[in-house]
Amino acid sequence: MKMVYKIWLDRGGKVFGDGPYELLRGVNNLNSLHQAAKEMGMAYSKAWRLIQILEKRLGFALLERKVGGISGGGSRITPEAENLMKNYERFRIDVEKAMDEIYQRHFGSMKKGEMR
Amino acid sequence: MKMVYKIWLDRGGKVFGDGPYELLRGVNNLNSLHQAAKEMGMAYSKAWRLIQILEKRLGFALLERKVGGISGGGSRITPEAENLMKNYERFRIDVEKAMDEIYQRHFGSMKKGEMR
Repeated sequence: MKMVYKIWLDRGGKVFGDGPYELLRGVNNLNSLHQAAKEMGMAYSKAWRLIQILEKRLGFALLERKVGGISGGGSRITPEAENLMKNYERFRIDVEKAMDEIYQRHFGSMKKGEMR
Repeated sequence: MKMVYKIWLDRGGKVFGDGPYELLRGVNNLNSLHQAAKEMGMAYSKAWRLIQILEKRLGFALLERKVGGISGGGSRITPEAENLMKNYERFRIDVEKAMDEIYQRHFGSMKKGEMR
């Protein structure tokens, strides 16, 4: 047996979670929302809409567009997005640790056949 | 902003969570799967199938059927189900407490406008 959970931040709808975190991390690594979406197997149009919705709910921009230059532009994350990601990373680590510990405490001894 | 999460136990599929817990609690209070399902706005056939699937995955019975008697039968939970429910209750309380604490630790200061 194992424990499964899904967790997200909400402000009038989903505002941040593992999916958006991965997408922003991809943008940070690849300097491109297009490439980041592709890497996650997500349509660019879907990724773009997601970012729009999250930015509206959060009240600040997550991405800024780099125009021109030798690489022909691209996207990068804003300082606010970077800050949110850092908080979220620490939050996720603490959640993971606490959840594992609590699961072990209450169900750790329950192997198959011992559950009765 | 707030945190939202869904959590469940899994053994080759969902094996226990808030929904099954509520259903069993209803059976325990009402001595009837029929009444318990009705109270949750769940079709009896759906509740019955759910119990069958969970029992199969858990490897023990959750309900026992009382036949006849002055009340014309009904259902009650097994000692194994009662034990599972008690563990789950304590598990849920600890999860709730830890999650609130972790959320406050990382996002508690983030009121609207302070999030940047």
